[in-house]
Amino acid sequence: MGQIHLHMSMSLDGYIAGPDVSVEQPMGVGGERLHQWLFAEPSDAEDDVVAGEMYSPAVVGAVLMGRRHFTVGIGQWGDDGAFGMPCFVVTNRPATPVVKGPTTFTFVTEGLDRALEQAQAAAGDKHVNVMGADVAQQLLRTGRIDTIQLNVVPVLLGGGTRLFDRLGPTELEQVAVVPTSTVTHIRYHVVSPPG
Amino acid sequence: MGQIHLHMSMSLDGYIAGPDVSVEQPMGVGGERLHQWLFAEPSDAEDDVVAGEMYSPAVVGAVLMGRRHFTVGIGQWGDDGAFGMPCFVVTNRPATPVVKGPTTFTFVTEGLDRALEQAQAAAGDKHVNVMGADVAQQLLRTGRIDTIQLNVVPVLLGGGTRLFDRLGPTELEQVAVVPTSTVTHIRYHVVSPPG
Repeated sequence: MGQIHLHMSMSLDGYIAGPDVSVEQPMGVGGERLHQWLFAEPSDAEDDVVAGEMYSPAVVGAVLMGRRHFTVGIGQWGDDGAFGMPCFVVTNRPATPVVKGPTTFTFVTEGLDRALEQAQAAAGDKHVNVMGADVAQQLLRTGRIDTIQLNVVPVLLGGGTRLFDRLGPTELEQVAVVPTSTVTHIRYHVVSPPG
Repeated sequence: MGQIHLHMSMSLDGYIAGPDVSVEQPMGVGGERLHQWLFAEPSDAEDDVVAGEMYSPAVVGAVLMGRRHFTVGIGQWGDDGAFGMPCFVVTNRPATPVVKGPTTFTFVTEGLDRALEQAQAAAGDKHVNVMGADVAQQLLRTGRIDTIQLNVVPVLLGGGTRLFDRLGPTELEQVAVVPTSTVTHIRYHVVSPPG
């Protein structure tokens, strides 16, 4: 079975979105700054390895996200749904699947554990990518994230959604650091889950 | 005149000390983890440059800190006071200077601006190093920090003292990244102060 990966762009002060996230502004006020590095000059080969492999359909087989992440994001993800793989949305509201080209969004109302099971089954030997702070924190709290990769963006947002919040102490192992001119990619293995 | 530098070890979740900081436990519960990298195997030359130069008396001429930082730290700083240079402590309580070998601690009751002036005067052409979250945030808020260097430690503390809190949006420029096996050093210039 593949691993569970958390891969996010985070400001130096720990935010993955600015304040006032909405359908009109899915990254919150000022939060688009966190994605600027994606549009910078083509990066070196090493960067492509680290940043690319964790999104590549060759490596990642499914995505797991919260309902809010889906709701504010879907308008931005285009006709192909951006991910190109099965996506599972944890929600309390039943809904029929949304299909956007090669991307399918399946709504799971039986809780996070069941959604994760479904994502892992769909991913097969590949990894599951977790999106959004709420789902990430729930999985971190119970030791179910294997790898954390952060794109640390040189900005202080000053407010918004914190990636790491309401967690216990967790030991990590730094396994790769790839700086580019606009961002620093750092990858960690989770050694001990929050106690 | 030299620059104002902020140089701290920070957990990946943004803490520079664990919960319950006290004289007995100056780094708070679990906070000593943030300094483990200092006792790791000798690092490579590049690391020495980045980590070393911002503490070196050849480059740094004075230290500015809050009273609480002094109070919980002084017991740990040994007979030589650790810093080997003039240190200025912002406080409301007048106190006579404390001399520990080559290190002097001068208590400034006329406010942070005056303490910073005194530190800059003492530093001459060298930099002033700022210590502690409270003083750092006050100076960041008014755009008076020139350079931020963080030793990003692969751990989530889950609670304690956050380095970046109650700040406005601030653009940074990433100027150096030096990974070692146990920590990642990242240096930023502050481009625009909080608005």
